[in-house]
Amino acid sequence: MQVDLNADMGESFGPWRMGDDAALLEIITSANIACGFHAGDADVMASTMRRAAENGVGIGAHPGFADLQGFGRRRIKLSTEELGNLVAYQLGAAQALTRRAGGRVRHLKLHGALSNMASEDAAMARACYRAALAVDPGIILVTLAATPMEAVARELGASYANEIFADRAYNDDATLVDRSQPGAVLHDPAVAGARMEKMIRAGGIVTESGKVIPCRIDTICVHGDNPEAVAMARAVRDHLVGVGIAVTQFAGERG
Amino acid sequence: MQVDLNADMGESFGPWRMGDDAALLEIITSANIACGFHAGDADVMASTMRRAAENGVGIGAHPGFADLQGFGRRRIKLSTEELGNLVAYQLGAAQALTRRAGGRVRHLKLHGALSNMASEDAAMARACYRAALAVDPGIILVTLAATPMEAVARELGASYANEIFADRAYNDDATLVDRSQPGAVLHDPAVAGARMEKMIRAGGIVTESGKVIPCRIDTICVHGDNPEAVAMARAVRDHLVGVGIAVTQFAGERG
Amino acid sequence: MQVDLNADMGESFGPWRMGDDAALLEIITSANIACGFHAGDADVMASTMRRAAENGVGIGAHPGFADLQGFGRRRIKLSTEELGNLVAYQLGAAQALTRRAGGRVRHLKLHGALSNMASEDAAMARACYRAALAVDPGIILVTLAATPMEAVARELGASYANEIFADRAYNDDATLVDRSQPGAVLHDPAVAGARMEKMIRAGGIVTESGKVIPCRIDTICVHGDNPEAVAMARAVRDHLVGVGIAVTQFAGERG
Amino acid sequence: MQVDLNADMGESFGPWRMGDDAALLEIITSANIACGFHAGDADVMASTMRRAAENGVGIGAHPGFADLQGFGRRRIKLSTEELGNLVAYQLGAAQALTRRAGGRVRHLKLHGALSNMASEDAAMARACYRAALAVDPGIILVTLAATPMEAVARELGASYANEIFADRAYNDDATLVDRSQPGAVLHDPAVAGARMEKMIRAGGIVTESGKVIPCRIDTICVHGDNPEAVAMARAVRDHLVGVGIAVTQFAGERG
Repeated sequence: MQVDLNADMGESFGPWRMGDDAALLEIITSANIACGFHAGDADVMASTMRRAAENGVGIGAHPGFADLQGFGRRRIKLSTEELGNLVAYQLGAAQALTRRAGGRVRHLKLHGALSNMASEDAAMARACYRAALAVDPGIILVTLAATPMEAVARELGASYANEIFADRAYNDDATLVDRSQPGAVLHDPAVAGARMEKMIRAGGIVTESGKVIPCRIDTICVHGDNPEAVAMARAVRDHLVGVGIAVTQFAGERG
Repeated sequence: MQVDLNADMGESFGPWRMGDDAALLEIITSANIACGFHAGDADVMASTMRRAAENGVGIGAHPGFADLQGFGRRRIKLSTEELGNLVAYQLGAAQALTRRAGGRVRHLKLHGALSNMASEDAAMARACYRAALAVDPGIILVTLAATPMEAVARELGASYANEIFADRAYNDDATLVDRSQPGAVLHDPAVAGARMEKMIRAGGIVTESGKVIPCRIDTICVHGDNPEAVAMARAVRDHLVGVGIAVTQFAGERG
Repeated sequence: MQVDLNADMGESFGPWRMGDDAALLEIITSANIACGFHAGDADVMASTMRRAAENGVGIGAHPGFADLQGFGRRRIKLSTEELGNLVAYQLGAAQALTRRAGGRVRHLKLHGALSNMASEDAAMARACYRAALAVDPGIILVTLAATPMEAVARELGASYANEIFADRAYNDDATLVDRSQPGAVLHDPAVAGARMEKMIRAGGIVTESGKVIPCRIDTICVHGDNPEAVAMARAVRDHLVGVGIAVTQFAGERG
Repeated sequence: MQVDLNADMGESFGPWRMGDDAALLEIITSANIACGFHAGDADVMASTMRRAAENGVGIGAHPGFADLQGFGRRRIKLSTEELGNLVAYQLGAAQALTRRAGGRVRHLKLHGALSNMASEDAAMARACYRAALAVDPGIILVTLAATPMEAVARELGASYANEIFADRAYNDDATLVDRSQPGAVLHDPAVAGARMEKMIRAGGIVTESGKVIPCRIDTICVHGDNPEAVAMARAVRDHLVGVGIAVTQFAGERG
């Protein structure tokens, strides 16, 4: 049994710092690196990629909407063609900077509102993923497990890695429990670690109601924006390793 | 005897149009396509690349400073590392969009103030060119003939194409005659065509004083920002073809 | 009987030109000047304001979403507080540049998606208008006639000018007929002029079905983005003047 | 004897935080608030202004070059007209947001490279200051003491406040000792406080060589970007108050 741990990184911009990337790089196995549109200028990208490569962490492009002020969290309606160009542009920029750093972009994960919209709308996921695959047919798509994202990745015959969240509760339709609800966000690292183990052993998402939604679980998303988040990420990793679940890069199997 | 004709293209942005790309694509053999920092958003890039590919015109990345309002014409002092990341980011974005359009980026030409600064400063040219070659060792660098740009391209063992301007007069040190001087800018297409022929036959830049600066002449830069510019470009092409100089893509020989 | 003619202006940006502002300034009485977020940098704003002042045309701030590539036409969901700051920031910038040009900002009209959203949603209109009035309690709000915009302007006790479009057909609920429908957009200047006269004489919007929606008609929106648009604007003006309806700046009465 | 303490504030942007504004507001008497071009979006501006007003701290506009990534520290060559529009635009935006927050913009201080360039070049200072005064003839200009900035403020008959730095050593020509030199930057709060007292009592800048450059000293610039900076600011204030020098807002006398 094995699983990958992924986190968003390289979210600094110009003079502004965000997240404890150094700490995360000792915990995770795949890094989603912002591509300059919602965070992460070219210099931040380059240095983040170098550090990820030095730590043997898989490098991923993490494209988002062109919205620095909103950190890519504001929904923007684009056409299929525009979405494809948005993703291809950022993926290409990431590839070039990674190549220069001596590595390669292994995976792609959509950010923020772009991800939220694509997880609800297969047409949007398709536009983004087709563009990414046109740029690199072998790229591994990180998909929210049991959402239209996964369905589209399978439909396109793409390599993909199904993702669940370490700190969020799930509804019976595989969506996340709204943050306004009690229990929606986990704060106890021990509970989070145990829940992740439970889902991996169950072979699917275990919802708040106890229902199991069978699906591949390839990677767990953790955060690093504050000391508590880093502690939670480390605790999840330690728990998994402790119970015999290897923490290692996803292979990116096809559906 | 042969020469390439290149022009800047894809300089529209969002709702704003610039240049007569359609007309130029029937005249030139290499297109320098803006990469989103000084002009040319991802959608403009994609459509420009598709049209260039359809016309059999060589596609080049045309990176510039991140300065839309100033159109990349304002000098900005960056470190060597920042310059490299700036160029690599834009080149990668262009590569990805070109790949998606079914082509490939064949050459790279620096834009505006970035080009002006690199043509005066070998360290800047080196920073930009090293980054481009790290991303694609086979890329053809378009260099201003007989400037530090060419020297650096040779030093790096890179493929390069030496460029002269169709409409500008040259000083004896291979720099351009300042626009404030009489005769600095040519407006007569017949004169421009004859001058280009003269330089190609002379095997070097022919300066205002009549001096010949021996150098490879691989490509001629023409413009398309107004009907007169397009007419000039066409006249230069027609003149060259008429006197038996083939207009064809540069090969990108090494120095 | 009298009416104002307004048009969007100052929509150039950096090296890019848009619209025939010089022609429009001879036709209209109120200019809505872009404030740098969706179009119109500070230099374009300043020169547009100077020309408007020289022509005796009323100067208005025309704030939009921070979205150059999308020209402010993409809907972006902001909080009430963010909307207010967005509008206040742009209005203030316009005021300062106008003051420097020797004039003053007389009115405010929302642009693009910001306007569309505010015309459908009283809470959004209220957030924008409250901010504008906090900056200048005497500013005249240009409101889409018979929409929540007008209702909010009245509720706030603000000076406002009700607007109708010269070239668009209206539904019975005062919304515009969708552009996909036949007859939605008028192309015949004579028809447009006659229709405007009809609405002004009827004292309200005359819809496609012939229904009259009684409302103040203070200003007519015309366009200048192409020669046909300018011709239409001139024809509308000429028709109105010809039938004895004075074309003059709106007074900005309260509701 | 009295002096003002000023600091740059509101330098957060979108999701990124910078500086301990809350701590600074208890120490300083004048706040230079970034205006959105190099830092500080409209929302950050609004909340910073509200907090400054609540603390009775004087509000200043702090315009810089349009360069988020470079934090306004990169030199950009603009024309006189462009400089004026740059400053007027940002000042106007700050005025509007301050008015909405229930206060007013009392002073203006140039940021980063814009300030560095204007402190070396009277023509640049004149372009910026003329624009600010055209927007608000009563605004107090914060000038680097004994530089062309001060000379221009006097020449224009403007209210101004002369500034010295708490933590920097001075050359005999009133420029700052280069950061590469030993002793250029003070790290000992006690030394800084004593040095400020010495300059105020001496009635001018005391240089490294011991020379006194006579000039008004109206305000001391302190920083808040890290805990050491805040401690230094507090120590300087405590020292001054302890030796009987009142810390209070500058009056902005004319030259």
